[in-house]
Amino acid sequence: MVDPAVVLFANDAFYLAFNHRDLAAMDEIWARQTPTACIHPGWHCLIDREEIMQSWSDILGNESAPDISCHGARVLFQGDVASVICFEQLEEGWLVATNNFIWEDGELRLCHHQASQCLNPPEMNRSDQPTIQ
Amino acid sequence: MVDPAVVLFANDAFYLAFNHRDLAAMDEIWARQTPTACIHPGWHCLIDREEIMQSWSDILGNESAPDISCHGARVLFQGDVASVICFEQLEEGWLVATNNFIWEDGELRLCHHQASQCLNPPEMNRSDQPTIQ
Repeated sequence: MVDPAVVLFANDAFYLAFNHRDLAAMDEIWARQTPTACIHPGWHCLIDREEIMQSWSDILGNESAPDISCHGARVLFQGDVASVICFEQLEEGWLVATNNFIWEDGELRLCHHQASQCLNPPEMNRSDQPTIQ
Repeated sequence: MVDPAVVLFANDAFYLAFNHRDLAAMDEIWARQTPTACIHPGWHCLIDREEIMQSWSDILGNESAPDISCHGARVLFQGDVASVICFEQLEEGWLVATNNFIWEDGELRLCHHQASQCLNPPEMNRSDQPTIQ
């Protein structure tokens, strides 16, 4: 069993790359040997790795791209995929995101990212809210 | 390597259970030994299996629940997770969904479902549209 802290470190690296507008770091994070999928909020699905990196180039190169902070990250081990479910806080609201990591060449790399609108974020402390770490 | 058709069959079973409002079939589909996550459109994330099944009970028991048709399903093998990316067509618009399956007791079971709004569905035939099967 991988230490969940290792997975959360990889997840943090993703959000650091985002907030530092660091396209090279973002490229390092994404898997090279495993099929990849990336679904930005409201978008269709990008499958091709080059298309995914082009989308990150567009997003990180956009001066009006928001800063994101990640909250309540939780790690689920699903076979040899380490799945992180977390909440992304932006100025305009909350998203809920899945970031799935897989081992490649001794590193955890991102093979799946999907972020979608979250109308009832953790701050609301609803009674039907799952416990999050 | 699993035949992608086997994965697509499991994916079809999920949408059949939905459209038939068949909670027992939906329960059969979800993983029992693997940690599960379910993110309905606009919702936060449900992690607990009982909470997930309660959400399906609420949705499938709701007479105004929409019918869904699944389009453009594509299978990505990410380690021992079989990930299906597909588009869900509803009366009110399109969603893009991820359904991740894993083997348990000789059956492919769903361990992750996330559906999110898709503003540029496949019908638009945009030039930046990925090829979908």
